[in-house]
Amino acid sequence: MSEDKPKRMAIIAANGTLDAAYPPVILASTATAMDMEVAIFFTFYGLDLIHKKRSKKLKVSPIANPAAPMPVPNIIGMIPGMTAMATWMMKRWMKGANVAKFVELREMCQENGVRFIGCQMTMDVMGVKESDLIDGCDLGGAATFLEFAKDADITLMM
Amino acid sequence: MSEDKPKRMAIIAANGTLDAAYPPVILASTATAMDMEVAIFFTFYGLDLIHKKRSKKLKVSPIANPAAPMPVPNIIGMIPGMTAMATWMMKRWMKGANVAKFVELREMCQENGVRFIGCQMTMDVMGVKESDLIDGCDLGGAATFLEFAKDADITLMM
Amino acid sequence: MSEDKPKRMAIIAANGTLDAAYPPVILASTATAMDMEVAIFFTFYGLDLIHKKRSKKLKVSPIANPAAPMPVPNIIGMIPGMTAMATWMMKRWMKGANVAKFVELREMCQENGVRFIGCQMTMDVMGVKESDLIDGCDLGGAATFLEFAKDADITLMM
Repeated sequence: MSEDKPKRMAIIAANGTLDAAYPPVILASTATAMDMEVAIFFTFYGLDLIHKKRSKKLKVSPIANPAAPMPVPNIIGMIPGMTAMATWMMKRWMKGANVAKFVELREMCQENGVRFIGCQMTMDVMGVKESDLIDGCDLGGAATFLEFAKDADITLMM
Repeated sequence: MSEDKPKRMAIIAANGTLDAAYPPVILASTATAMDMEVAIFFTFYGLDLIHKKRSKKLKVSPIANPAAPMPVPNIIGMIPGMTAMATWMMKRWMKGANVAKFVELREMCQENGVRFIGCQMTMDVMGVKESDLIDGCDLGGAATFLEFAKDADITLMM
Repeated sequence: MSEDKPKRMAIIAANGTLDAAYPPVILASTATAMDMEVAIFFTFYGLDLIHKKRSKKLKVSPIANPAAPMPVPNIIGMIPGMTAMATWMMKRWMKGANVAKFVELREMCQENGVRFIGCQMTMDVMGVKESDLIDGCDLGGAATFLEFAKDADITLMM
């Protein structure tokens, strides 16, 4: 590999919870600050992260992770409204350390030239239209991702 | 790296739910269509994906993902039979967009030469015999995977 | 890439359940036995894996994985005490096949020179102090990980 080419990172974002939303945008924005070339392929539940409406309402599941910040007996997780409470706690938790919020990090990624690819198959399956996604996204499939990823130095699915 | 060698992808499939079943076989079958060389290491819960009987009964967890297609209050997820209903919905959901079913995609992978490696340690721990797995699988451990992955261009765990 | 350099693996460990604890230390210890150079970045819930106290109490969630070894109706997963029981079963399950326990594998990694990097941002957010972590960990952020990973042959998030 020539030393002249920038290093390249290819990410698959496949989850749509609030805690799963941060890693792709934190890694991607940091990588562009280090002059890397980055693309994120948003697929399956991860498509929500670039969905205009749904990305504003990302939720944390309080029962799937027994190691979550506030451990609760599982039975508590069953009470209606608990997911909303856990989401509120997660937001406060991130805010407490002055971590830029998800949407700000996502904007920073786009300003820094991170390529966002929305999964066309997921859109077809879920009935999501291009106009439902935030501006500036490419659409593509597994082949689009692989074409980019085969020359990447870092490949991660999250 | 010589340009004569085909690009190579190494995947670890570690989850055994129906939604986790699609990404490895979609990516692998697409990659072989692009002339890549692919191996999938089926380990931990992912071993179910090449288990003759268990792979026919993969289930979606309705409560672990608050961003799932049909959001339900968590309390509903607790009703016995709900997982079966969510699995049925997932199958219908995939079918709705004419996505080839998991087993068909898995067969396509094998026909295209994707190497399937069943994790020997997981088999020992779970009491799974070689005859419990679908035909055409190699058996191996972490070292077998790493030996293949160290020369790969794309490495992903899912 | 020069053939003189050892192969390199960069892992992101982002989950803090007992079943998520094994893959990073199994892969890393195996890789060092194959003369690879390895670093693990412990971030988000994954920070628990190098937290002195919390890593001794890792739990399996009995309800998040419908494909878990002992399938239980989801409603059963709601009974208080069930997570403790599932954790006990997981430990026994791993022990049954003479798999070295997580803490032993983690020590083997450190003895073999695997570099452990605790995520500084996660520590700040969660109020974790350096003295809360096991000895011999570096602290760093996404940039520290990416600096190592950009020259890696294998990159995985788990």
